[in-house]
Amino acid sequence: MKKRIGITIGDPGGIGPEIVLKALAFHPEIFEACVPVIFGPAAIVQNVMDDLRLTVPLQTVSPEAVVQNTAGATALLVDLPFDGQPPAYGQICAEGGQIAFEAITAAIEWARKKQIAAIATAPINKQALKLAGIEFTDHTAIFSRVTNSRHTMTLFVTQNLRIFFYSRHIPLKDVPARLNRRDLLHAIEYSLKYLNQLGIEGRLAVAALNPHGGDNGLFGDEELKIIHPAVAEAQKRGWRVSGPIPADSVFYLNLSGHFDAVLSLYHDQGHIAAKTYDFLRTVSFTMGLPFLRTSVDHGTAMELAGQNKANEISMVEAILQAAHYAWPAATF
Amino acid sequence: MKKRIGITIGDPGGIGPEIVLKALAFHPEIFEACVPVIFGPAAIVQNVMDDLRLTVPLQTVSPEAVVQNTAGATALLVDLPFDGQPPAYGQICAEGGQIAFEAITAAIEWARKKQIAAIATAPINKQALKLAGIEFTDHTAIFSRVTNSRHTMTLFVTQNLRIFFYSRHIPLKDVPARLNRRDLLHAIEYSLKYLNQLGIEGRLAVAALNPHGGDNGLFGDEELKIIHPAVAEAQKRGWRVSGPIPADSVFYLNLSGHFDAVLSLYHDQGHIAAKTYDFLRTVSFTMGLPFLRTSVDHGTAMELAGQNKANEISMVEAILQAAHYAWPAATF
Repeated sequence: MKKRIGITIGDPGGIGPEIVLKALAFHPEIFEACVPVIFGPAAIVQNVMDDLRLTVPLQTVSPEAVVQNTAGATALLVDLPFDGQPPAYGQICAEGGQIAFEAITAAIEWARKKQIAAIATAPINKQALKLAGIEFTDHTAIFSRVTNSRHTMTLFVTQNLRIFFYSRHIPLKDVPARLNRRDLLHAIEYSLKYLNQLGIEGRLAVAALNPHGGDNGLFGDEELKIIHPAVAEAQKRGWRVSGPIPADSVFYLNLSGHFDAVLSLYHDQGHIAAKTYDFLRTVSFTMGLPFLRTSVDHGTAMELAGQNKANEISMVEAILQAAHYAWPAATF
Repeated sequence: MKKRIGITIGDPGGIGPEIVLKALAFHPEIFEACVPVIFGPAAIVQNVMDDLRLTVPLQTVSPEAVVQNTAGATALLVDLPFDGQPPAYGQICAEGGQIAFEAITAAIEWARKKQIAAIATAPINKQALKLAGIEFTDHTAIFSRVTNSRHTMTLFVTQNLRIFFYSRHIPLKDVPARLNRRDLLHAIEYSLKYLNQLGIEGRLAVAALNPHGGDNGLFGDEELKIIHPAVAEAQKRGWRVSGPIPADSVFYLNLSGHFDAVLSLYHDQGHIAAKTYDFLRTVSFTMGLPFLRTSVDHGTAMELAGQNKANEISMVEAILQAAHYAWPAATF
């Protein structure tokens, strides 16, 4: 039986609804891979279809419905209650933030009831969330809190490149000081665990921090003092991990099949690899939740909304990857 | 008239002679693009051809010869004097270092006499140079000193990705402190100048240092304090430069034609982009010499020498890129 994959429409002031609908309208492979379940107010979804002249066969259901798989290329639309005017294209407002947030919480509730196996999210806007009085700043924060998950970790997937992150949104100058054996060992452990959860018996490579991996201490000693000892300890525990491996070859070694995933030590190290390799097809996974969450790797692009200009490829990939990797959701 | 391109054989204990000969034996496009001029002892070149059963039509000339272009698919071989036994495959020794060094200096002399337009180099070995009593540690040091060039700069070329470097072989933790407006302005100036020398009317993008370009100071302030002011000053001077642009999109913007080159702020920033995008086809240019020098982007791989296992693709690219971009050599 095909998996049902939840798809949240994101902030309706941005390109979210457009890329979701274009994905379903123009990419029949999605219906081969899963039954898509859209979360958002039906009125807004219909407006966007009308404005952009898109046709997607939809079967509208209520948030409380108990569903079966649809036949053929029909998507389910979970119609979320919404009073008032939908936000105009390009508008950052409380209504947009509220709609985006409710789509997420409804999808999480459906995952909890095991009506969907995974969730692919369209982009939301921090400012709009704030205007709506919602205390969270991003998707990961919402998912973690609502599902009570403590060890979430971002994984980038671009074709067969899989990149975990040791650190992300910190200044580059703070990256070396943030590196320590205990946390690195922890990140290795969770990277392997999450790789396993995706059905991959993992061989993980840990990227080096310095050029040429420090060249034996010549250009930095974090490899000798921190990374190598952490990897050695992990190997002693029987974990399938190698490193430190110079960052300019480690991603190639993943792509060529020597490794199944890379643990990147800082944001740009992994981001540059994924997005230079295939900018549009980079999908972000949030691991450590009771179910798989995938996401496009771009923002709401408010300035493009409603103009039929947004590229839906990243959304297509987020849905396909969710369908490919989703596991039966845990109870939470 | 076709350009003559010098090709140095590198350290004969490594894979240098093998990849040079495989490039000429298996890639006829090289003879469409240029007249290859190999520098090295004829006895060693002949040995490698015999050992690996390679056939390359060669016309042997003396280092003092005055040459004309050969017809068809025949390469010139500048036979350098060499007494004694050639080093065994895999052996790091003084003879290997000496032969590698003399191939380079002979090629430079030929460039000085305008008998070749550019030089593509096979890899050399630091240790072997040292054993031979040669004070230089790498190609760039040799080329800079012999041609008396002060402002050499590395440029990576991978298909239409072109990457200059602000800094290279320093620990990651020293990268932020090394960044300052004056040196950055200088690097922008020379990047544009060298892009011009390659016949490209350049639009240069300066990469950001921090994730998301610091997100307006949230994750680091080097963009606000150093990079943005340097770029603004450069623009005031009429230079075609933009930035800082987040490092995870700047290389994609070069690949998609928005920019002609990227100024990368540190080694791995540019290396990860080039080598993840196309590992084997990354060629390193040394700019700031009186002629173009290109190089494979890998080492001597001593452990592979003599086994017919080395991949010659990077050497092929180094020769083709040299032929494509070479300009008439300056007098020096």
